[in-house]
Formats: sequence, structure tokens, C-alpha cells
Amino acid sequence: MSELGPGKLRGWRATAHTIIFESDTKAGRAFDVALIVAILCSVVVVLLESMQFVDARYGAQLRTAEWFFTVLFTVEYVVRLASVGRPARYARSFFGAVDLLAILPTYLSLVVPGAQALAVVRTLRILRVFRVLKLAYYVQESETLMTALYASRRKIAVFTFSVLSLVTIFGALMYLVEGPASGFTSIPRGMYWAIVTLTTVGYGDISPKSDLGQVISSFIMILGYGIIAVPTGIVTAELTRSAERGLASKIACPSCGAGRHQPDATFCRACGSRL
Amino acid sequence: MSELGPGKLRGWRATAHTIIFESDTKAGRAFDVALIVAILCSVVVVLLESMQFVDARYGAQLRTAEWFFTVLFTVEYVVRLASVGRPARYARSFFGAVDLLAILPTYLSLVVPGAQALAVVRTLRILRVFRVLKLAYYVQESETLMTALYASRRKIAVFTFSVLSLVTIFGALMYLVEGPASGFTSIPRGMYWAIVTLTTVGYGDISPKSDLGQVISSFIMILGYGIIAVPTGIVTAELTRSAERGLASKIACPSCGAGRHQPDATFCRACGSRL
Amino acid sequence: MSELGPGKLRGWRATAHTIIFESDTKAGRAFDVALIVAILCSVVVVLLESMQFVDARYGAQLRTAEWFFTVLFTVEYVVRLASVGRPARYARSFFGAVDLLAILPTYLSLVVPGAQALAVVRTLRILRVFRVLKLAYYVQESETLMTALYASRRKIAVFTFSVLSLVTIFGALMYLVEGPASGFTSIPRGMYWAIVTLTTVGYGDISPKSDLGQVISSFIMILGYGIIAVPTGIVTAELTRSAERGLASKIACPSCGAGRHQPDATFCRACGSRL
Amino acid sequence: MSELGPGKLRGWRATAHTIIFESDTKAGRAFDVALIVAILCSVVVVLLESMQFVDARYGAQLRTAEWFFTVLFTVEYVVRLASVGRPARYARSFFGAVDLLAILPTYLSLVVPGAQALAVVRTLRILRVFRVLKLAYYVQESETLMTALYASRRKIAVFTFSVLSLVTIFGALMYLVEGPASGFTSIPRGMYWAIVTLTTVGYGDISPKSDLGQVISSFIMILGYGIIAVPTGIVTAELTRSAERGLASKIACPSCGAGRHQPDATFCRACGSRL
Repeated sequence: MSELGPGKLRGWRATAHTIIFESDTKAGRAFDVALIVAILCSVVVVLLESMQFVDARYGAQLRTAEWFFTVLFTVEYVVRLASVGRPARYARSFFGAVDLLAILPTYLSLVVPGAQALAVVRTLRILRVFRVLKLAYYVQESETLMTALYASRRKIAVFTFSVLSLVTIFGALMYLVEGPASGFTSIPRGMYWAIVTLTTVGYGDISPKSDLGQVISSFIMILGYGIIAVPTGIVTAELTRSAERGLASKIACPSCGAGRHQPDATFCRACGSRL
Repeated sequence: MSELGPGKLRGWRATAHTIIFESDTKAGRAFDVALIVAILCSVVVVLLESMQFVDARYGAQLRTAEWFFTVLFTVEYVVRLASVGRPARYARSFFGAVDLLAILPTYLSLVVPGAQALAVVRTLRILRVFRVLKLAYYVQESETLMTALYASRRKIAVFTFSVLSLVTIFGALMYLVEGPASGFTSIPRGMYWAIVTLTTVGYGDISPKSDLGQVISSFIMILGYGIIAVPTGIVTAELTRSAERGLASKIACPSCGAGRHQPDATFCRACGSRL
Repeated sequence: MSELGPGKLRGWRATAHTIIFESDTKAGRAFDVALIVAILCSVVVVLLESMQFVDARYGAQLRTAEWFFTVLFTVEYVVRLASVGRPARYARSFFGAVDLLAILPTYLSLVVPGAQALAVVRTLRILRVFRVLKLAYYVQESETLMTALYASRRKIAVFTFSVLSLVTIFGALMYLVEGPASGFTSIPRGMYWAIVTLTTVGYGDISPKSDLGQVISSFIMILGYGIIAVPTGIVTAELTRSAERGLASKIACPSCGAGRHQPDATFCRACGSRL
Repeated sequence: MSELGPGKLRGWRATAHTIIFESDTKAGRAFDVALIVAILCSVVVVLLESMQFVDARYGAQLRTAEWFFTVLFTVEYVVRLASVGRPARYARSFFGAVDLLAILPTYLSLVVPGAQALAVVRTLRILRVFRVLKLAYYVQESETLMTALYASRRKIAVFTFSVLSLVTIFGALMYLVEGPASGFTSIPRGMYWAIVTLTTVGYGDISPKSDLGQVISSFIMILGYGIIAVPTGIVTAELTRSAERGLASKIACPSCGAGRHQPDATFCRACGSRL
């Protein structure tokens, strides 16, 4: 039973809940697989629609398929709302919002032509099905990653703010040194260039022409080449740490039940009895 | 004796098996070295053939050499098939497939001109010779790497799927924001650009022109610069772990049970008794 | 009380010190928040001023706002000088220098038009407010990072010097091999190209045209792709080490002396006695 | 006394040896500093000479300075040869070869104009002075790095060979798919492009135009973005390991003198006595 559990739901609602939100039954599992296929097909339709030479020949069919999937997902969304105990809570949850965002673009395209391109946000719906399908290992691994990233959030925030400060200062400096002639038409444009350079992307759409500009660029490049070590170091140290925790967590103390002992522990760190 | 062992093979087949599949004898070793040289030469021939100014002058000779090596490898392939106990199993193995793929392109070039370029797949054959030559250390190291990558496969899959979702969404967003004028002619093209940017390759063949497009790009670049930390962290944590396991985990103290001793330890570091 | 403590300051100076340099009082906290807002606004003004189409319409208003913030920060700087016990020491400190540099560009722009772009150095002032606001966790994290980088400074220096030697040698080599026709007009320009290539930025404004040049480039690229592992390895090893130290090294068991206990340990894992 | 010790050298040779090869005396230290300055100056002269507008005005003076330094280094080289016990061994050593290579380009430039650009190899001479100056910490750190890289050499070799195989295969594939029209004029050119892409340099001088080519490129980019984790992981794991060894090495067993105990060892792993 999911956290949005059926509560006092009866009749078709309880059945719908079991099929849509759970995957222990055969019907539930079939629904999940059908959903993944439908999502992937609808994303492919959106991609094909955006390619002019495909759209020129099969435009009508693609448009029909697009509306077919949209109506399908709309019905599904309404049934989901109807078959959860707390519809408001579902609607405000992350996946509830994604479910809504996945159907809105097509309706929006009636007013703003082209808006249906945003329907690709549907790919995010697959993430939920991953969870529902109870692909236990994958979920655990992605949770390990999320935990490591979450534990590093403050280091990452400090790092990002420092990088943005550097980008602002170097952007302004290059705007002064190079000027509009080389493409540095404003400080924000200089900041865009600084990000392109510091992250080692290097499009080459804007590049320094003057000697002084190239000296400053060289400095930024070496800096960017070096400080990429910082986020890498943060995440790696965190993953190593969580791996060690994972390593140690499997033995539980026989007398008090405490887990997560170090691999070479002889006595329980919580109650002192022999492991 | 290899896993594709000669079984009840007799006469020349048994001899061929020893020479081709094993490298304990002098003849076997000589065969392996000759094979590496032949593979490298044939790859160089293919490379030279593709260079117009070389092909214009030495085209005939190169074509002859190409056929010479192809016939040689074809004979070798047939002999291999004949001298293993289970030919079908060999033909379906990874290296059996590579051996076949290494000769097909030249025959294919009779029908589809230029197909011989694919013959460079022969470089993969060298990997087998590495193994056969019993370059023990190298094999062990590459196995350490493969094990670490294999142990991380689920984390890598989750990461790759997340990256592809991001690429799809950002590709569609940039297609809407920039439009065909800047080169974003379809969502798939926008996805191509998003991959070029997120991986920090940055060709510059398609680059954002509008202010909003450059703001979104900046965000993608910083994201790409940061999340490269994730695969790096995964592999590093795995290699560190396997290094620790390899280094120390195998012996446990017989009297106190402490593990993770250094490889040259004679006495337990925890209780002092002989290991 | 801060390290630049009010000492024997009396009257309005003591009050000013409490508000400006400390953040324990309500007034001090309000001042810090107001300062962050003022800094961000003034940086946005400088950015907008540099954009021609904005400057063309709102130039006068932006110029006024720019002078408003400059006078504000000038007054603040003078009050800071007046309300510290040792003004000279404050003026020479890192943040004292940044405070001065944050107001100079606008005055300089009276003599050198455009110099106000340098006022973006104000973003650095926010770093101080971070510290003053006692965002304890963030400060601690950034100190962890700084400590790791500081502990690695010699390894980083050796690495940077080696990279610069490589850059000089490859720059001269490519200058000889490619020559002015491909854009390698001098050795320093070749060094600029070598940095662009080794750091994997790859603008493409200068790129090798000859076969030999492309072979040498390929070598540099693979080298650059590989040696990025070195700074990453240095920082990661340092962060892993400091994480381990931080996690566990501080308490030693009083009865057996074993160290590196987990942070929540109550009993020694080696002998079982109470910590 | 250095490893190339003066042996039975007498008179001015012994004095020269002390000054040139050692740095315990005041004269030796002064010589080392003077040498670093001379090397840096001579490299700057070579750089300036390669810049046309500088060469046009100060060509004669730069040429004179270049010859002055070359004669100086030639004299130094001869004195070095004369003041070591085993001249042949010195001449064949790494730094002996660099000392010779540092003077040859200028003489070569009499025959091949422009060859003096290679004189920048002199920067490598500074590495020796680093060692001679006994910058103990820096030398130790660079040895830690070299040891880590040396210990990883087999993993790095396996990795480099795998990358080169991939580059060959993808280069040939793109040569077939894209053809000369997009700049893929031969397989070697395709391999150059594959290296530019896989290492995330991305000049953009050659870039795929066809849809299939862009799909293959996307795959290579994601691959390159991912496998950069491998060298990073190798070096980091090695540095972490050597850091741990470094951590553990400081306590020696009081009874048998064995070092490199694990940080939490209570008993010596070699003789079993209490630490």
C-alpha cells in the first residue's frame, strides 16, 4: 500500500488505486509497463514533430498521436486524483506536479503554437515508474548518489558562489580589456564567455583577440582546469565515506542491536558488549 | 590448455591448437608476436588507403597488401574453427565474433566500395593477444578496472538515464528559446547541442545567440562542469574500495578475528598473536 | 567581539562598531542583510550600465544609482575606519582592501571612462558578510575546502610548474611546425594555444592544419585529458583524509588508547571499556 | 656530496664541483640562484624573438643576448663535464641530456633558421635546480606524485591502449558516415577528430553535419565524459593509498624497528611486541 494510500476508498476507486499506484498485482505491473511504453512513444512523437521534413509529410498523423497521448494522460491524471485518499497532497507532490506538467504543453499549444515541445518533460515521469516497479537495486543506488550529493550540498553551494564571483569579476575585466570589437559587448556577455571558458566548454563564438586578453584567458583556463578538482573531490570523498558506512553497517550488536560498526570493531560502540 | 580445449583433437589439429590458442611453447609465442605485427601492419594499410594522396600513388600495392592480410586472417580463422573442440562456441564468443568482423569488411568492399575502412576493428584482436601472451600484470590491472566498472554499473546506468532526461528537456527548451535561426532546427538537434555543451566538448557549430539562450546555456555548462564529479566519484570510490580489499581483507587473525591486516603482517595488530 | 575589537572606543564609535562589525544584536543583523541587498543591487546596476541598449534608455538613472551606492559605501568605509581600534590594520587586511577597491572604480571612472566596470569586485564583499552572519556550517565547509587546498599547495605548485613547462615546450614546437599561416604567429601565441588545448577548452580560434601538427595536438589532448587526474587526485585524497580525521580521530580510548572511533561511540571498539 | 661525486678530483675541478653540483656552500647557493635567473631570462629572450613586432625593432639586441646565454650555458656544460668524476655517465643522464639540448638549438639555427625556438627546452633545466636547491618539501611532494603515477603505469597503459582502439574504430566509422564533405578526408583525420571529441577539447574545425554522424558523436562525447573518470579514479585511489601509507609510516616498532604500521595498530605486525 503506497503512502498516498486508498484509505476509505471503495469500489472502482480502490481497484484503480491498486492498479495505478501499486505494482504487486499482475494488473499493476502491466499498467506500469504500458505507461513506460506510452511515455516513450509520446516523447518520440514530440521529437519527430519538431523535425521539419518529418512534420511536412506526417504532420497530421503526428498531431493526432500527440492529442491521443495527451487525452490518455489527462484521463490517467484525473483517475489518479480520484483514486488517492488525499488528492490535494498528491497534486502538490513532485510527481503530481510532473504529471500535470506532462499534459499542459499540448493544451497550451492551442494558444501558443510550438509549446508542445515542452511535453518532453514527460521523460521525468519514467523516474516514478522506476520507483513503482520496485527496481530495488537501482533505487538504492540512486538514493546513495542523492544522499552523497545532499550531504555535500553546503560545500557545493560555497563552491558555486565562489565560481560565480570569479565569473563576474573576470567577465568585467575582459569587457574592459577586449571591448565590443571581440564580442565582449557587455559585462553579462563577458560573464557568459567566462563561464564558457572556466567550465572548459570553449565554443569559440567569443574569444579574446588582444595579447592581454589571451594572458587573462590562459589564467582562467588553468584555474578552471584546476578547480574542477573541487566538486570532484567533494563528491568522491562523500561517496567513499558512504561506501565505508555501507561496508560497516551489516553487523548488528547481538545485545543492543546497534548497527554501523567499523569493520574491525570487536566490541559494540553503544553498549560495550562483545560482537 | 585453454577453455576451448582441444578435447579429443588429434594430429595437425592438436598441433594447431597448441600454436594458435596457447602460448606456453616457443612456437605459440612466435605465432602471437607474428599475429600482433600482422594486425598492426594491416591496420596501417587501411589507414594509408584512406588518405587520398597516398592512395593515388600506391593504391595498387595497398590494395594487394590489404587482400594479402585478409586472406591470411581468413585462413587463420578457418584453422581456428577447425582446431577447437567446440567450433560453434568459439564462433559465438566475443573474440570469435571479432575475428570474423576483422575479415568481413574487405569482402564487403567488393559490393560496397569503401567498406574496408571498417577493417580497423582488427585493433580489437590485439586485446586477445594481450591475454594470450599472459601479460599477467596488465591482465590483472585491466580486470581490476573492469571489476570496478562492473560493480558501478547500476550507479552508472542511473546517472546516464538522468543525464539523458536533462539533455531531452534542455534540448526542447533551447529549441523553443533559440529557434532555427541559431541552428536549433529541431528538438533532436537541440539535444545534440545539449550533449555537446553538458559534456564540455563545445564545438561551437551551434551556439546560443539570444540573451535568454545564453543564460540557459550558462546553467547547463555549470551543471555539466559539476556533475562530471558523479561518474568520477563513483569509479574512484569503487577503485579505492577494491584497492583496500585487495590489499588487506583476506587474512583474519586466528585468535581475535581482526581483519584488514597489511599484506606483510606476521603478527595481529590488535592482539599481537601470530597470524 | 571581533578581532578588530573596539578597544577603548566610546560613544557613537562603540555603537557603530557593534552594528557594523558584529551580528549578535538585532541592529547588527539588520545591517548585514541591508548590506548584502545593497551590494547585489549595486552589482546589478553596473551590469545593466554595461549593456548598450539598457544604457541608451536608462543611462541617467543607472549613473545616479551607481553614485548613490558609491557614496553609501564610501560613508560606510569611513565609518568602519573610524570605529575600529586599529584603523591601519583594518585598511591593510584582505576585507579592508576589498572594501576600498569596491568604491575606487566609480571615482576612477571620472578620469578613465568605463572604469566603473571594475566595481563588480564588490561581489567579494558578500563573502565577508557570510562570515559575519555566522552561517556556521557554510563557514566550516568553506574552511574544510580551504584547509584541503592549503594542505595541497605544494603538490599544486609542482603540478602547475610542470604544466607551464610543457606548455612552453609544446607552444614552441607548434610554432615551428605550423607557423604563422595557421595562426601560430609567435611562441607566446603557441603557448596560448597549448593552454587552450591542454585544459580541453578548445576554442578553435587557432587550430593545427598540418598532419604533423595534428599528431602533436592529439598527443597534447590525450595528455591533458589524462593529467587532469592529478589535481583531482590531490584534492580528493586530501578531502578524504580530512574527512576521516574530522570524523573520528579526536577521541582516544582511555584504557587501551585505540583512536579513530565513530562519532557516536560510547564504548571502545577494541577493548569494550567506556569512552 | 652528489651521486656524481668528485671522486679523486683536485684543485679547481673540486671547487667547480662544489659550486655547480652542490648547494651547501654560499657560493653554490648563489650559483643556483644565478642559474635560475639566467635560464628564465634566456627563455624570455627566445619568446620575444619569436614575436614579429618585437623582433623587427630589437632583433639585433635579442640575437646578441641569445648568443650570450648560449655561450654561457656552453661554458657551463663544459665545466660540468670537466668537474664530475664520470663525465660519460653525466652526459647520458636525464639532466645531462637536457643541458646539451638547451644549447644545441642556437647552434642549429645557423643551419636551420628558426631552430632557436627549441631553446625553450631550457625551462626543464629549472627542475634540476629545484632538486639541487634542496627544496625538500617540494621534492618530496613531486616524488609522491611520481610514485603514484609510476604505481599506476600499467593501469594507465591499459587505459591508453583501449582509448586508442576506440579512437581508431570511431575515426573509421565517422570517415564512412560523414565523408570528405564534412572534413573527414581520411581515417587518420577521423581519428584526430575522435581524439578532439573524446577528450572534450572540441575545436569545431571538423564537426559532424549528418544526423547519423551527430548521433555517433553524441555517443562518443558521453563516453569521453564518462571515461575521464577512469584515469582520475586510478590516480586518486593511488594517492589515497600512498597518503594512508604516509599516515601510518611515522611510528616505528621499539623492539624490531619495523615502520609503516596501520594507524590503529597496538602490536607490531612484524615481531608482535607492543608498540
